[in-house]
Amino acid sequence: MLTAELVSALHNLLPPDRFYTDPVECYTYAYDNSRKIFPPQAVAFPLTTDEVHTIINLCNQHNTPLVPRGRGTGTAGGSLPERGGIALSLERMLNIISVDIANRVIVAEPGVLNQSIQNAAKPHGFFWPPDPSSAAYSSIGGNIATSAGGPHAVKYGTTRDHVLGLKAITGAGEMIKTGCYTTKGVVGYDLTRLLIGSEGTLAVITEATLKLTALPSVVAGITAYFQDLESCATAITQIMALPQLPSALEFLDNGSLNLIRGRHPDMLPDDANAMLMIEVDGSEQDIAITISSILDACKTNGLIRASRAENTAALWKARKALSPLLREIAPKKINEDIVVPVDTLPEFLSALERFSNQYQLANVNFGHAGNGNIHVNLLIDPNNADQVIRAEQCLDKIFDLVIRLNGTLSGEHGIGSEKRAFIGKEIDQPTLSLMKNIKLLFDPNNILNPGKLFPQ
Amino acid sequence: MLTAELVSALHNLLPPDRFYTDPVECYTYAYDNSRKIFPPQAVAFPLTTDEVHTIINLCNQHNTPLVPRGRGTGTAGGSLPERGGIALSLERMLNIISVDIANRVIVAEPGVLNQSIQNAAKPHGFFWPPDPSSAAYSSIGGNIATSAGGPHAVKYGTTRDHVLGLKAITGAGEMIKTGCYTTKGVVGYDLTRLLIGSEGTLAVITEATLKLTALPSVVAGITAYFQDLESCATAITQIMALPQLPSALEFLDNGSLNLIRGRHPDMLPDDANAMLMIEVDGSEQDIAITISSILDACKTNGLIRASRAENTAALWKARKALSPLLREIAPKKINEDIVVPVDTLPEFLSALERFSNQYQLANVNFGHAGNGNIHVNLLIDPNNADQVIRAEQCLDKIFDLVIRLNGTLSGEHGIGSEKRAFIGKEIDQPTLSLMKNIKLLFDPNNILNPGKLFPQ
Repeated sequence: MLTAELVSALHNLLPPDRFYTDPVECYTYAYDNSRKIFPPQAVAFPLTTDEVHTIINLCNQHNTPLVPRGRGTGTAGGSLPERGGIALSLERMLNIISVDIANRVIVAEPGVLNQSIQNAAKPHGFFWPPDPSSAAYSSIGGNIATSAGGPHAVKYGTTRDHVLGLKAITGAGEMIKTGCYTTKGVVGYDLTRLLIGSEGTLAVITEATLKLTALPSVVAGITAYFQDLESCATAITQIMALPQLPSALEFLDNGSLNLIRGRHPDMLPDDANAMLMIEVDGSEQDIAITISSILDACKTNGLIRASRAENTAALWKARKALSPLLREIAPKKINEDIVVPVDTLPEFLSALERFSNQYQLANVNFGHAGNGNIHVNLLIDPNNADQVIRAEQCLDKIFDLVIRLNGTLSGEHGIGSEKRAFIGKEIDQPTLSLMKNIKLLFDPNNILNPGKLFPQ
Repeated sequence: MLTAELVSALHNLLPPDRFYTDPVECYTYAYDNSRKIFPPQAVAFPLTTDEVHTIINLCNQHNTPLVPRGRGTGTAGGSLPERGGIALSLERMLNIISVDIANRVIVAEPGVLNQSIQNAAKPHGFFWPPDPSSAAYSSIGGNIATSAGGPHAVKYGTTRDHVLGLKAITGAGEMIKTGCYTTKGVVGYDLTRLLIGSEGTLAVITEATLKLTALPSVVAGITAYFQDLESCATAITQIMALPQLPSALEFLDNGSLNLIRGRHPDMLPDDANAMLMIEVDGSEQDIAITISSILDACKTNGLIRASRAENTAALWKARKALSPLLREIAPKKINEDIVVPVDTLPEFLSALERFSNQYQLANVNFGHAGNGNIHVNLLIDPNNADQVIRAEQCLDKIFDLVIRLNGTLSGEHGIGSEKRAFIGKEIDQPTLSLMKNIKLLFDPNNILNPGKLFPQ
């Protein structure tokens, strides 16, 4: 429970509409997209760096957990106040401080939505490349805290490639300024990227300097249908061996296609058991060459057909409909986001089929195949105890395979609370110890998002 | 002096041709491109990670400075054993461990030359983008330790954008493994980029996983000559406002042009006082469009002429000849590598002209204008005490202006010993303290490259 003294200090600092202690109001900040629920005892809505600073100092004095939060769209539990304390919602720090097109930079506060950045950049012919599927309603602060990425990462990289500098307040209450305003800069240690992806465990980001990229002049799509998984996996490796990178290369397995069929009966060929949705961008001439190379690379024994899509927007709509459809068919899904080297995808995807049979579990797999980043969804009924155990065993098998293939356990979601039990499979003990010591250096009282990212 | 016990332990570990204690032999490892000289008491040449590990442990036991070194091409004194001790030359760790084209990855030991990586990648249609002017003879370990960049950074970024993971041994003697093998990965803190640019003060890199990029199909050049600096600076900002990024945008001021004229009398128009060397790459069609846009963007009042260069290689040869020419005309040059936001280049470059008059100092300025990264060279006679004082005053003025313009003190060279007195101008005290504490965490006995990067 919060001390009366702390509550009173926060009431003095913030007006009632920016400091909630009513459990009903606090409950709104108890969850994210992980389906776990941990209500905070209070929610604070700072508007300024100074207010964030004061709140951090108060939490240190009272040894109270403080859990920074963007818009709560994360899937790994990273923003949940698992040990109680105060949820620090940055959602009202909404200023775009500057739009500096000559230098291809936008400076913004953490609560600004990814979409708002796109809206500010687009009229000038620019965009900010990180594109998590939540982009319309997730904040740049959250994007940075998780080093968010999406389908376009195959060509454009993830958040860590598109932030020049940060202002932040460490768990110890130090106001720091990292990085610089220019695209080159090698003065001091790279604290910018140390904070990117640190899931609110080291510091609270209060301002970000974002690097913009010019919008491509043309975007086009390709769809390719395959009779079998193996042919599709082979096509992925053939596409990624081309010099031209697609701007997206999305894979859908048979389970995914069946979900879409349920909603759109005539959309897909009957004999398709795997599909690629491919996007290319650039100039009209370049795209023509790239499309022709990609259509060639799709030619495998099991190819049904590959062709330029007439409507790229419709393509993405089908892909984006998948996650909600998954929710409908299973009361719980274990949604992983592992990554394997692209040339091991044939081996990995066929192993998933094997595991599905072996553990008698329905799984649906799709994702950003160009980066080897596959969303493995195990569909389970949480009331079926035996199924839950089989799912855990299966997951363990999947993670071991990922590590054996030189992959990583998370390409997008992060560790949060969901994957902390498994981090030791990937990161060795000395490296993990060093990370823990870095945490302690930034946040000696362990007030910032305590318990996350590290094994309990 | 080294203790007899340490020398004996190292003699036991390494054969005589991999452990030097003869001062004459050690002297070869006393300098870099900063013109400072600090002989080590010994030089060790490990071949394996285990040997590096043992050497670090021994230096901890004997509290002896250990200064990691690639090929000694740095200009900031970063690899000099200023406080004596042992130079740890990684130059014989020369294995390219794997060339994995399907996944666009090369794994290599730190002593491998940048050029050797290019040679391994090129037959497959790939390259590794970091391109310091020393690329032919500098090592990837050194490139990583300094986050090296070069002319192509304007399109391709610097070293920190092209390394997926590292193996390293910290100053405390912990073997760590950072990052991953895939292009996406968000498991744990980003220690990879914390080590990149850390100038050998945190850990010794023993293996690097490098991300490759496809070679462009065509490369073309443009030269543009201007009657005055202002017109040239305006052209730079107009070029960088185009959506298409040039693959290089190099600026040469009047001082630079006069140096070239001394060697190549008929190469340049007589009335040119500033020049741009521009490179574009991509497909033939794209290049045609980009060249036409860039030629348009060069149109300013003082433009003499802008045209596609017939011979791109010759263009770069002239540019690369500049540094040695500078050496010839002045016994000492203060070679800075500041960065300012591109749209402040007109203000910055005209201020440099003013400072040159005010402090009566010859200066020659050129550099990677597309990133706002300008090499400011103050030409001085070190025996002229008054000139040396004026140069110091002028430099201080330049650095203050850079910071006021929201720039950074170093875009490529790093801090080393050369710029540590100035780092406080750019990095505030709390951030610098945090960096010092990170140093202490990685290297509690301060054995690794002691004294570098931080103010004394």
